[in-house]
Amino acid sequence: MKASLKLSKAIAETRSLLCVGLDPEIHKLPLSVDKSTKGLVEFCTGIINSTKDYAAAYKINTAFFEQYGAKGIEAMEEVFAAVPSERFLIADAKRGDIGNTSKAYSKAFFEALNSDAITVSPYMGSDSIEPFLEYENKMVFILALTSNKGSADFQRIKFSGKELYKSVIETALNWQRRAEIGFVAGATHPLDIASIRDITGCTLLIPGIGAQGGDAEAVLKANGDFPAIINSSRAIIYASNEEDFAEKAAIAAKSTNELLNNYL
Amino acid sequence: MKASLKLSKAIAETRSLLCVGLDPEIHKLPLSVDKSTKGLVEFCTGIINSTKDYAAAYKINTAFFEQYGAKGIEAMEEVFAAVPSERFLIADAKRGDIGNTSKAYSKAFFEALNSDAITVSPYMGSDSIEPFLEYENKMVFILALTSNKGSADFQRIKFSGKELYKSVIETALNWQRRAEIGFVAGATHPLDIASIRDITGCTLLIPGIGAQGGDAEAVLKANGDFPAIINSSRAIIYASNEEDFAEKAAIAAKSTNELLNNYL
Repeated sequence: MKASLKLSKAIAETRSLLCVGLDPEIHKLPLSVDKSTKGLVEFCTGIINSTKDYAAAYKINTAFFEQYGAKGIEAMEEVFAAVPSERFLIADAKRGDIGNTSKAYSKAFFEALNSDAITVSPYMGSDSIEPFLEYENKMVFILALTSNKGSADFQRIKFSGKELYKSVIETALNWQRRAEIGFVAGATHPLDIASIRDITGCTLLIPGIGAQGGDAEAVLKANGDFPAIINSSRAIIYASNEEDFAEKAAIAAKSTNELLNNYL
Repeated sequence: MKASLKLSKAIAETRSLLCVGLDPEIHKLPLSVDKSTKGLVEFCTGIINSTKDYAAAYKINTAFFEQYGAKGIEAMEEVFAAVPSERFLIADAKRGDIGNTSKAYSKAFFEALNSDAITVSPYMGSDSIEPFLEYENKMVFILALTSNKGSADFQRIKFSGKELYKSVIETALNWQRRAEIGFVAGATHPLDIASIRDITGCTLLIPGIGAQGGDAEAVLKANGDFPAIINSSRAIIYASNEEDFAEKAAIAAKSTNELLNNYL
């Protein structure tokens, strides 16, 4: 099944555009959870199970597991496996390297971890992303305009009147591929999301609502009817620091889901 | 000790500008080595031990270990630990993400794995690199002009007559930091290395000689007397597919070392 079809099915089934971002850190785990990599699995699994009716997708940020070494990776593998197979699973890895290296990464994320999608960084150009694009039924989200402050440093540099992130989008749309492509565009830039929609109807992964302060209403208006998935991480996973963390995460996910649906 | 001082000591001790790149893949391991993550450790450790008189630095490409999951990371940890403490140790990870994520990566590579340096991707801007820059006595190599073909796609885009990679260098030089910065500039672009030397005297990590075809003589002439480390990976680590792989790697490292010294 095409990745975009899997995503639209998940969105239809949950009636939700929400992607729950899993960025867990041991020192932020709820009081009731063991402060270890085993605790990371308990925490993430609890949140996945409690939020799955309100989230079409899960985005697992690999850095937060990698920082704990081999045990962190074991935990990450368990968390990947805990995402229901009908939900859209994004490896938020922001990789991109010379061909044989990106090939290794594509195997790791698309084969070993069986994710539906991955985020990649475009700085090194076409051949750094090509290995990911060879996978049918996968989606490759290319960083375009990220949600952070530093996105202004280079992504907005203009040449011939055009910002770099738009050139990234236009160039990437011409790359040969078996996979589908999508773009990452931060919720902190609704005007740019509107202008991205003048260029492409590809799926957008939109992080930055919640803790990062993006305006969900402005974002959804700018996006219109095009396929998109809206990520919230910290506002959901850290909704409570108590034993009820999974229930409170579910309440936060449900209300974010309803909020997003109100603006559709 | 400042990272640049550690590097210059290692260069002086070995009389070598060579950095050996460890990008091992199980299916390419010599016939005598077990085709497993244990084999990766045996292979890399053998090469480190046999080449350490001819290499000032080792660059470990994390992707090649990550592709094998938690066992790959365990192997990677052993390989990091096998590099002699007087040699300069570079984690070639090409990371860069929003602040709390990059902070997690900086802990993983600078603390848990105790590398002297890391490679980072600049696309997401200052705050994505800031956490790495907080470490005194570490070096952060920012991708400027990479050695691959795709480097032309975005890194050479011109705005106001200036190529993006030069803007990356000039902007990064203004970032606040405790760590030292350096830049990655591919050996496939000697003319650009000369023009980078008009901008900065920072340490350059120059990959792309050997299998990628960069011209060592042209590169060293362009670099002049500025600090630099020249990476070769496949031409050294795959010098032999037989039981003598470590000896042959040593011969290849020694001759690359001598070749580089001839051009100084």
